[in-house]
Amino acid sequence: MSDSQPAQIAPIRYDGGTLRLLDQTLLPGEERYIETRDWRDVAAAIRRLAVRGAPLIGIAAAYGMAMAAREHEVDLAAQVLAGTRPTAVNLSWAIRKVAVATKNATKSGGDAVAAAESEARRLHEKQIAADERMGALGAELLPAGATVLTHCNTGTLATGGIGTALGVIKTAHRQGKIRGVLVDETRPLLQGARLTAWELSREGIDYDIIVDGAAAGIMASGIVDAVLVGADRIAANGDTANKVGTYGLALAAQAHDVPFYVVAPMSTVDRSIESGAEIVIEQRQPAEVLEIGLEGEAIVPAGATALNPAFDVTPHALISAIVTERGVLRSPFDAAIASLAQLAAVMR
Amino acid sequence: MSDSQPAQIAPIRYDGGTLRLLDQTLLPGEERYIETRDWRDVAAAIRRLAVRGAPLIGIAAAYGMAMAAREHEVDLAAQVLAGTRPTAVNLSWAIRKVAVATKNATKSGGDAVAAAESEARRLHEKQIAADERMGALGAELLPAGATVLTHCNTGTLATGGIGTALGVIKTAHRQGKIRGVLVDETRPLLQGARLTAWELSREGIDYDIIVDGAAAGIMASGIVDAVLVGADRIAANGDTANKVGTYGLALAAQAHDVPFYVVAPMSTVDRSIESGAEIVIEQRQPAEVLEIGLEGEAIVPAGATALNPAFDVTPHALISAIVTERGVLRSPFDAAIASLAQLAAVMR
Repeated sequence: MSDSQPAQIAPIRYDGGTLRLLDQTLLPGEERYIETRDWRDVAAAIRRLAVRGAPLIGIAAAYGMAMAAREHEVDLAAQVLAGTRPTAVNLSWAIRKVAVATKNATKSGGDAVAAAESEARRLHEKQIAADERMGALGAELLPAGATVLTHCNTGTLATGGIGTALGVIKTAHRQGKIRGVLVDETRPLLQGARLTAWELSREGIDYDIIVDGAAAGIMASGIVDAVLVGADRIAANGDTANKVGTYGLALAAQAHDVPFYVVAPMSTVDRSIESGAEIVIEQRQPAEVLEIGLEGEAIVPAGATALNPAFDVTPHALISAIVTERGVLRSPFDAAIASLAQLAAVMR
Repeated sequence: MSDSQPAQIAPIRYDGGTLRLLDQTLLPGEERYIETRDWRDVAAAIRRLAVRGAPLIGIAAAYGMAMAAREHEVDLAAQVLAGTRPTAVNLSWAIRKVAVATKNATKSGGDAVAAAESEARRLHEKQIAADERMGALGAELLPAGATVLTHCNTGTLATGGIGTALGVIKTAHRQGKIRGVLVDETRPLLQGARLTAWELSREGIDYDIIVDGAAAGIMASGIVDAVLVGADRIAANGDTANKVGTYGLALAAQAHDVPFYVVAPMSTVDRSIESGAEIVIEQRQPAEVLEIGLEGEAIVPAGATALNPAFDVTPHALISAIVTERGVLRSPFDAAIASLAQLAAVMR
């Protein structure tokens, strides 16, 4: 691979009982893979954030379950894997799916390992297909020669497919529609500067990193044609919880008539939550904010404290459209979400 | 000095030909002072940002001119000092003031050194008085038990007095009105996390640092009673250029009915500029955005580029009031600014 020739990124690959995981903690400085046949290593990789992004975590755990089926440790693995990141919904869901497939195969005298592997692969392929569909639907929304702005990392490194918001950007780029990409660095954990920039570099897509505070002024300058973000959770009315900083972007987009698109699979929609008011904002460790200094140099004074909300809620009124693998939802979002969910239930 | 007993911060002190300057590049890790009798050291300190903040740079240059008067090098010093930071308006203005005072004294057979020192001290004292006045006027605007949010550093380290926006917070704190202070870390140069946090620590005022992207969501939570910021330049209609990230704060404040106050001396108002549209946004080096990694660890991929606008413009419609040393200006700002400027001309 050379700089001029973009190569496919494969953050996860499973073959004949061996899982190969890209260690995201080392990016972008080093591209190192974890290769293992032991599901315990998968749990460890999830726990220390070598694998991140809710969909990708789910897929990694599913393959971990397949590896456990080979060792007849499905029950133990299910328990350990589910405990690695207790808040990720995709994780427990994916584990349950593979566990059920394994048990059904065993009951009916089938090949439990083959069933587990096939189910894990199906979940992975389903995510890849959903990403492709969101990419195609989202790219249709962008004008030719678009300059887009994105936040956090919503690419291959988060889903194992082409990504959600970043998948739309990649798809539109392949269609020749992208003039430029502005990447919010996304403090505190810098997923934009570290991971999104790395993915775009690898794809050969030009980009500029900006500090999060620069987005509003840059939108005022008129150069941004659309803002594209992912979602952690979408309420029944369309209110969207996403990485901290997203809400400020939405306000700036509204002030300058810049379309603001949320790109997320339908599994992100949580219809048990009526509105964003019910979403509890996770407060993370102050250290993530405070520890950014060069080694040996204190950036904050001794005893400094920080508030570190991990995400914020963007009210549905600020969202131009929600791009899902089942279609593009528009206002009124509550009705659009309800009818799409109904349709899914009918088709099930 | 102990943690429990706040001590006065003196970023600049002049006595009998010796200037003592706090080296701000070492904060908050180390509190080291530059002591010198040589105006060339003052120029060097300004050039390498050991002294920063437009008003403080002006005062340092004024004292530098007084030191030069002792060596009969006023003309050379004026030229060298003016070249250290070409964009700072206060710098050339302060240098000219001291140069004129020195020349007038020489012409009339007076003591040139005494005249230079007296003029430099007068400029410093004038800034201190203006800060105190802004502090008192601004504090009146805050409710009891206020939680305020501020951006960048607008304190003693920027002006040599108590500061502008931070001076208001300090004054209100002395009046027992401040419940909490939220400090935007202020990427890319982290003046909030480094300098404002340090000043507040030294003053014994509780604070929490937040990432810039967290401000909008925190305002949505309802805990912020006012946003206070400084200004780099204010147009005749009240549009205000300030550190990048300010505009986004103003949009979020408006969305949640949080008063948004600009605190700045009248010298910041540039009536030759009709509106913010005429203000050219300075683009600074990408390295400020890209080079934030731990030593030896790449945060951004090789070849990554960045856009780095140094400030943004907040439209006057988003500003609740502009607090100056001559009074609190409110909408319509164009009329308020014009009448205050007229008054100042009459009183001159």
